[in-house]
Amino acid sequence: MQITRIDCIPFNLPMKNPVRYAGGTLTVSEHVLVQVHTDEGLIGSAEAPSRPFFYGESQASMLAAVRQWFAPALVGQDPMGFERAWAAFDQVEHNDTIKGALDIAMHDIAGQAMGVPCHRLLGGWDTSARVTYICGYGAPQAMADEALAVRERYGIDSFKLKVGVDARQDVAMLHTLRQALPDVTLYVDGNSGLNASDALRVLDAGYEIGMAWAEEPVHRDDRPGRALVQKHTRVPIMGDESCRNPAEVAREVADGFVQLVGIKTARTGFRISRNIVAQCAALRIRNVIASQGDSTLGILAALHFTVAHRATASQPAELGFHLNTVADLLEDDALPPIVGGRMRASEAPGLGVRLDAAKLSRYRVD
Amino acid sequence: MQITRIDCIPFNLPMKNPVRYAGGTLTVSEHVLVQVHTDEGLIGSAEAPSRPFFYGESQASMLAAVRQWFAPALVGQDPMGFERAWAAFDQVEHNDTIKGALDIAMHDIAGQAMGVPCHRLLGGWDTSARVTYICGYGAPQAMADEALAVRERYGIDSFKLKVGVDARQDVAMLHTLRQALPDVTLYVDGNSGLNASDALRVLDAGYEIGMAWAEEPVHRDDRPGRALVQKHTRVPIMGDESCRNPAEVAREVADGFVQLVGIKTARTGFRISRNIVAQCAALRIRNVIASQGDSTLGILAALHFTVAHRATASQPAELGFHLNTVADLLEDDALPPIVGGRMRASEAPGLGVRLDAAKLSRYRVD
Repeated sequence: MQITRIDCIPFNLPMKNPVRYAGGTLTVSEHVLVQVHTDEGLIGSAEAPSRPFFYGESQASMLAAVRQWFAPALVGQDPMGFERAWAAFDQVEHNDTIKGALDIAMHDIAGQAMGVPCHRLLGGWDTSARVTYICGYGAPQAMADEALAVRERYGIDSFKLKVGVDARQDVAMLHTLRQALPDVTLYVDGNSGLNASDALRVLDAGYEIGMAWAEEPVHRDDRPGRALVQKHTRVPIMGDESCRNPAEVAREVADGFVQLVGIKTARTGFRISRNIVAQCAALRIRNVIASQGDSTLGILAALHFTVAHRATASQPAELGFHLNTVADLLEDDALPPIVGGRMRASEAPGLGVRLDAAKLSRYRVD
Repeated sequence: MQITRIDCIPFNLPMKNPVRYAGGTLTVSEHVLVQVHTDEGLIGSAEAPSRPFFYGESQASMLAAVRQWFAPALVGQDPMGFERAWAAFDQVEHNDTIKGALDIAMHDIAGQAMGVPCHRLLGGWDTSARVTYICGYGAPQAMADEALAVRERYGIDSFKLKVGVDARQDVAMLHTLRQALPDVTLYVDGNSGLNASDALRVLDAGYEIGMAWAEEPVHRDDRPGRALVQKHTRVPIMGDESCRNPAEVAREVADGFVQLVGIKTARTGFRISRNIVAQCAALRIRNVIASQGDSTLGILAALHFTVAHRATASQPAELGFHLNTVADLLEDDALPPIVGGRMRASEAPGLGVRLDAAKLSRYRVD
C-alpha cells in the first residue's frame, strides 16, 4: 500500500464560550483537516489545531508545510512507515501539530488496513477513560456552577481550572470549587503565566483543598522560579508547555521540575506520544492526556491513545473540550458520549472517523 | 482473538566453538521455545535463552514462570494486549528473557493476524541490516584469522572482540586486528570484567586504532571506576549489562556513563526494547542491537526489530551468532542469509518463523 495524496482542508469552528487563559483568549478554533489517501482506497483522517501562541503554526503554514515538505516525503511511501515519516518530519524544525496530524492519519490507515481499532494497535490496555472537564477562567461562583452542571449532566468528576490572571481570586475560586464539589479531582492550569510568588500562593491553597496536581504554573524559561516552586510546594507539578517533545521532557524531568508530564496527541501524534510514555515510565513519571482545544475529531484520536496505554489511562484525560464548542466535523454519534464520567472507545477499525459532509462544507474556509 | 495455551519446550544446542568472555565460557545454548496458541489457530513463536550469569534464569525457572504466573495472566486475553501483558509481567521481578520471549511471540501473532511482517508493524524503517560478527576470546592472530575468514565468506565488515582476560594481550590483539582489517568497524566487549586501569589501557589502544566504541568495560556497580573511565577516554562507551531495563538505562544515561545503549530483544522483548529506543532518542543516545547468544529463532526476531527502527538500523547489529553454533530449530532457509555483510528481512507476516520438526525433536530436552 502506498500513500497517493494528502488533502488539507482548513476549517473554523465557533465556540460556545471563549476560553480565557493566562496567555490570552481563544474565541474560534482554526484547524486543518488532514486526509491521507492510499492506492487501496483507504483514507486516514486527523485534525491539526493551529495555536500560534504555543506552536507558531497557522492554517496557511500547515498547508504550505504539507505541500512543500511532507507530501513530497510521504507520497509513494508505505502509510505504516512511521520511522521514515518521522525521519522526514525531523528534517524540519517545529510545525508540531501538522506533523502530529499526519502521524495520526497514518495510524488511522494502519488500523483500517489491519482491521483493528487504533487503541488495540497501540497497546490495548483498556477501552474506556475517565474524562476531565476544563473550566474556563471566570468568577469563582460561576466556575463552580459550571462544574456542578457538568457533573450533573455527564457524571464527570475531574475538573481542570484555569488560573493565573489574579492569584487572590484563584485562591478564592479553589475554596469555592472544593466546597461545591467535595469529592472530585481538581487541578489547576497556570499556562506558564504566574511568577513563583503567585504560583506558591495558589499552590498553598491547592494543597489545603487536596488538589491533585498543578499544570505549568511558571514559564519553562523561568528556571529560578521553577526551582523555587519545586522547593516550597508539595503539590506535584505537571509539565505541558515545557514538555512539547521528548528532549524537553528529558530536561524537565532531569531538573526535577515535573512529577507529571502532559501529552497532547495533537502535538506529538501517536508515535512520539508513545515515546514520551516510554521515557516517563523509566522514571515513574505520570502522564496526563491533555487537550489542545481539539474538536471531536482530535478528541477521538486522543481517546484511542488514552485507553491504549496503562500510563495514560491511569489519570483522568482531558477529553471533554467539545462540550465547550458549538460545532465539529463528525456525524453526531461518531464521538462516543460521556456516561458516568467516562468515554468508551469503539471497536471500529482505525479511529472510526465518520465525517459529516454537510458540516465540513459549512465550516471549511478554503 | 484469545490466547488459549502457552507451550514451553526446553532445548539445548551444541556450539561449534565455546564462547569465552570475561565472566566465563558458554559451551552449550540452553534455551526455551515459547509457543503462544490462539483460538483462531495462529501460533506465535519465540525463544528465551537461559543465561543464569546475566539474568538468573534456567530452563526450569522459565517453565515454572509460565505455568505459575504468566500463562494464567495471558490465557483468555487478546494476544495484541501488550499493555496488559506487561502489567502482568511487571508483577514479577526479573525473569527477563521469558518475558521477552512471550512478548515477541505475541507480536508474531499480531503480525500474522494483520498480514504484515513484524518489521513493518514496528515502524518500517528499512528491510535490511548490517551485521556484526562476534569473535570469541583467543590469541591475537587466531582472532584476526577468524575475522578475515568471516569477511571473505559473508562480506561482514563489523566485528566485536571479546576482551578482559589479559589487558596487555587485548592491546596486542587490537593492533593485530586493525592491521589485518584496516577498513572495518571494530569494537570491544569487556563484559563488565575489567578494572578501570585495565579498561583505560585497552581503550587507549582502541582510540589509536579507531575503535568505534567499547561495550561495558567496567562493572555497573563500580561507579568510581566507570567515572574514571568516562573522564579519561574519548572512546564512546556502550552499556549492556548495566542497561537491562529502562530504569537502568535512565541511571547510566543520567550519570553520563554511556553514549550508546545495547538492546537485546531476548531481554526486553519488542515492547520494552522500543521503549528504550524512545528514551534514548530523547537524549541522542545511540542504540546497538546486541546478541544474547541467540539461535536463528532469536536472531530472526532481532532482525525484525533492527530494521524496523532508524535508531537500531543506524549501527551494525549483532545478528551473526548462528555462524558459531552447529544447530538451530528453523528450516535451513528460514533465517535470511548474510550477503555483502547484510541480512534482509522477509515480507512474510509476523516473524516468518518456520520450525523444523526433525530438529526440534532432536534438540528438545523435555
